[in-house]
Amino acid sequence: MHFTSETRIDDILVEREFTFDGISGVLWTPASASHPSPLILMGQPGGFSMRRMLPRLRARARSSAEQGLAAVAIEQPGAGDRPPVPGAAQARADLRRAIEAGEQPAEEVIDRVILPLVERAVPEWQRALDELLTLPEIGDRAAFSGGVISIGIRLAAIDPRIVAAGLFAGSYVPRTILDEARRVTIPVHVLLQWDDEGNDRQRALELFDALGSTEKALHANMGGHTGVPPHAGEDAGRFFVRHLWDSRR
Amino acid sequence: MHFTSETRIDDILVEREFTFDGISGVLWTPASASHPSPLILMGQPGGFSMRRMLPRLRARARSSAEQGLAAVAIEQPGAGDRPPVPGAAQARADLRRAIEAGEQPAEEVIDRVILPLVERAVPEWQRALDELLTLPEIGDRAAFSGGVISIGIRLAAIDPRIVAAGLFAGSYVPRTILDEARRVTIPVHVLLQWDDEGNDRQRALELFDALGSTEKALHANMGGHTGVPPHAGEDAGRFFVRHLWDSRR
Repeated sequence: MHFTSETRIDDILVEREFTFDGISGVLWTPASASHPSPLILMGQPGGFSMRRMLPRLRARARSSAEQGLAAVAIEQPGAGDRPPVPGAAQARADLRRAIEAGEQPAEEVIDRVILPLVERAVPEWQRALDELLTLPEIGDRAAFSGGVISIGIRLAAIDPRIVAAGLFAGSYVPRTILDEARRVTIPVHVLLQWDDEGNDRQRALELFDALGSTEKALHANMGGHTGVPPHAGEDAGRFFVRHLWDSRR
Repeated sequence: MHFTSETRIDDILVEREFTFDGISGVLWTPASASHPSPLILMGQPGGFSMRRMLPRLRARARSSAEQGLAAVAIEQPGAGDRPPVPGAAQARADLRRAIEAGEQPAEEVIDRVILPLVERAVPEWQRALDELLTLPEIGDRAAFSGGVISIGIRLAAIDPRIVAAGLFAGSYVPRTILDEARRVTIPVHVLLQWDDEGNDRQRALELFDALGSTEKALHANMGGHTGVPPHAGEDAGRFFVRHLWDSRR
């Protein structure tokens, strides 16, 4: 992992760009911290470049830094200047066509959209964790937040360094990932937009039910995919503080 | 309305007992307040006496008082030393029998348990509001919190003094009340225990969907009827502060 820039954004936030394995990323740490900071892996919507998401990522990172938490984003497979994921554009067009026609998308379409992304993104997040958790300013526990929910589920199911997950039920989840959800046992906080145009409510409720965690919360709010109210973000922030900090200090 | 006692519990809370129309109640107000306090109507589980619930009601009232809010509880129809609601004991036994047999309770049983209680409790809450909102230390807006959800729904649907409702989806809701839910337009915050043994999850989700409010949130947590986690109560507290205070000050 190679840091390429460091910027003190303000009294709260330090922003550092890095690359590893040819992937670029940004690490945000609290400008002043007395302990190593637990780390939030900030997911992004599939296919969106990190540059496009940067203002929102930075705002989320600032909220985390105010709680003494570090946050990281990496360029997703197929996004920004990374090579496209084979078949991804076609798969997304097929999914969009089904949704716009008011149809339930076929399972094979959902699989084609999501699974190649999960298969690439999860090991990349794990490699990033290998590097980031060795930094002296970063603690030894991490949480996944937002982005493509299927990526969060697989990471939560397989990587013990992930101790909590804030999941956004804003995309279709393949049946195979639904099965993996049963093996998730860490605390999860699931956000659902009740009328999300990019997901099916009944499937989202089924997924929440499937999660194996004994501590799980579903927060459903009115509105579409992009209409998450500010107080829902604040609730999620408190969830991370409870599980990344409170059990330690 | 006749106040019969006044006790300063501590630096935060003043507790006053009162009677009106032969019904006893308790009003809690902040021990120091610079503005008239908005009022939270604290519902209780059907059939439970106020005396039995007092420690929990007082704890909820203290949390409210810390936010400058007043809170009130009144003895429910058929509870404590009030005459029983005709047919209520038989109806509850019939409901319990169906639930214990793992059956979906018949609509007529749900109606018999809930509707007589709603028909008596709602006008009593309205009479209490008539009196309480004229007190100089109480503001002109109120919210309903907890207790029997069907009572909260009807109050929210018909009384404009109720500006927000925190509802606990912990009891069966008659079909007629489900229809009334469509006419609720105030902000609502619905708490659902995912495996509540006293309710049916699918009916609770249907109810949430039916509520006519443009601002509504569903917070579902794991566990049974009595397993609401502390952070869920804190989220509900912030909901009341947002809607009873923040739009004013």
